[in-house]
Amino acid sequence: MTTAAIVSQIRKKKSFLCIGLDVDLQKIPPFLLEKEDPIFEFNKAIINATHHLCVAYKPNTAFYEAYGIKGWESLKKTIDYINQNHPEIFTIADAKRGDIGNTSSMYAKAFFEDLSFDSVTVAPYMGKDSVEPFLAFDNKHTILLALTSNEGAFDFQTKELENTQLYKQVLETSKSWKNSENLMYVVGATKAEYLADIRKIIPDSFLLVPGVGAQGGNLHDVCKYGMNDQIGLLINSSRGIIYASSESDFAEAAAQKASDLQQKMAEILS
Amino acid sequence: MTTAAIVSQIRKKKSFLCIGLDVDLQKIPPFLLEKEDPIFEFNKAIINATHHLCVAYKPNTAFYEAYGIKGWESLKKTIDYINQNHPEIFTIADAKRGDIGNTSSMYAKAFFEDLSFDSVTVAPYMGKDSVEPFLAFDNKHTILLALTSNEGAFDFQTKELENTQLYKQVLETSKSWKNSENLMYVVGATKAEYLADIRKIIPDSFLLVPGVGAQGGNLHDVCKYGMNDQIGLLINSSRGIIYASSESDFAEAAAQKASDLQQKMAEILS
Repeated sequence: MTTAAIVSQIRKKKSFLCIGLDVDLQKIPPFLLEKEDPIFEFNKAIINATHHLCVAYKPNTAFYEAYGIKGWESLKKTIDYINQNHPEIFTIADAKRGDIGNTSSMYAKAFFEDLSFDSVTVAPYMGKDSVEPFLAFDNKHTILLALTSNEGAFDFQTKELENTQLYKQVLETSKSWKNSENLMYVVGATKAEYLADIRKIIPDSFLLVPGVGAQGGNLHDVCKYGMNDQIGLLINSSRGIIYASSESDFAEAAAQKASDLQQKMAEILS
Repeated sequence: MTTAAIVSQIRKKKSFLCIGLDVDLQKIPPFLLEKEDPIFEFNKAIINATHHLCVAYKPNTAFYEAYGIKGWESLKKTIDYINQNHPEIFTIADAKRGDIGNTSSMYAKAFFEDLSFDSVTVAPYMGKDSVEPFLAFDNKHTILLALTSNEGAFDFQTKELENTQLYKQVLETSKSWKNSENLMYVVGATKAEYLADIRKIIPDSFLLVPGVGAQGGNLHDVCKYGMNDQIGLLINSSRGIIYASSESDFAEAAAQKASDLQQKMAEILS
């Protein structure tokens, strides 16, 4: 999917919402546990109820791997369901992978070819040759961790590194990598005040912004400092939407939460 | 598995060799492709031929994920085969995971509980709360990326950060994390000259050292600078061992390569 197609969807749906499909069997409505594939049934209901309100879905692979082969099957069914029924939606494998070159190529194959995701999140610690194998794929996007939403971001990411800070160095250095036009970045909503500085380094790149909702990030602050003339933002909410209710009305409740966010986004866009 | 049990195995087998099970269907003997599960058949043959020469096996998850659900099944069968037949062998899921706290817990569950690995490699970029969920497991080991074997290690890891270097800061900071006695570190054999400095910061920790063989690292240099009085080293070779032959004698050829390394290790240990 091209960046232009994402922007076009955002303008059409008046939404730059990404919904995180982080399915924990201990949190989904108990009646679903009787189904053959509770994770997929949960996702399907959430997708059916919310696809008109969001432009992206982001399953975090940890929540599928935790259930082994069955979980990996649920992930495959989920991405296939989205691609078949809502091909206009941008899909993100939140996998935070990264390894030496020939190994990163295998990860890229896993997420871009076998699972047919549009994008994958990648950790920058191992540098250029660990990221470029992902960037080599046409019309696929690599979403590099820059400044994450968690407390641990202050352990290394914000530390002073060669007259700047590590996360800024990641932004700056990655701009020179091959096919860097396929790069997006993760910047946590809990650190909205950093966005003005970030936009000085990467004015045009799309940012995937987790941390609105359960983690406490503020939508208006993120838009104030992070939005550019092509919107440039995908705001993710996971738990705040998908676990809005643990009863049989869970999908409607999720749609209501998604709609609340979408309406705020429509206001901001107008 | 306790660290003492690993050390005991090393002394018994006179080997601190780890064999990387990074199975690429394009590199294994073609006749195996006719089998129902070529990856597992390949691994089983390699394990049968080499288990007395090594103390650890390290499948890199990328090579399994690239083949989707079938690949994940091969990984599960491989780890089950090792655990059932060679429970004394230390197993490493080379997965390089790491995410916000509740998500890292799901990854820990995937590798320590569902797949029953003894250890998993973890990326440090997201800091303390992304690593501690792995450390919380008793008798399981978390192997943190410090200084990797690839060229990209010079992009960020060796950069000056607050009067030291990023990789040294990772070593220093992680020592204060909860249950840090369960930490090991990845240090590439291609950067053996850094090991003396590394040992000043973490004298006692085990190091997983990839990059001997195909990547060009030197065994004697690694031991000279990295060995401590409990050995403290697991030296990994993947391609240099498992792809020694692409004919029907592939397992014997792998055993020969593993034996060459083991004999050098026995000399060093004596």
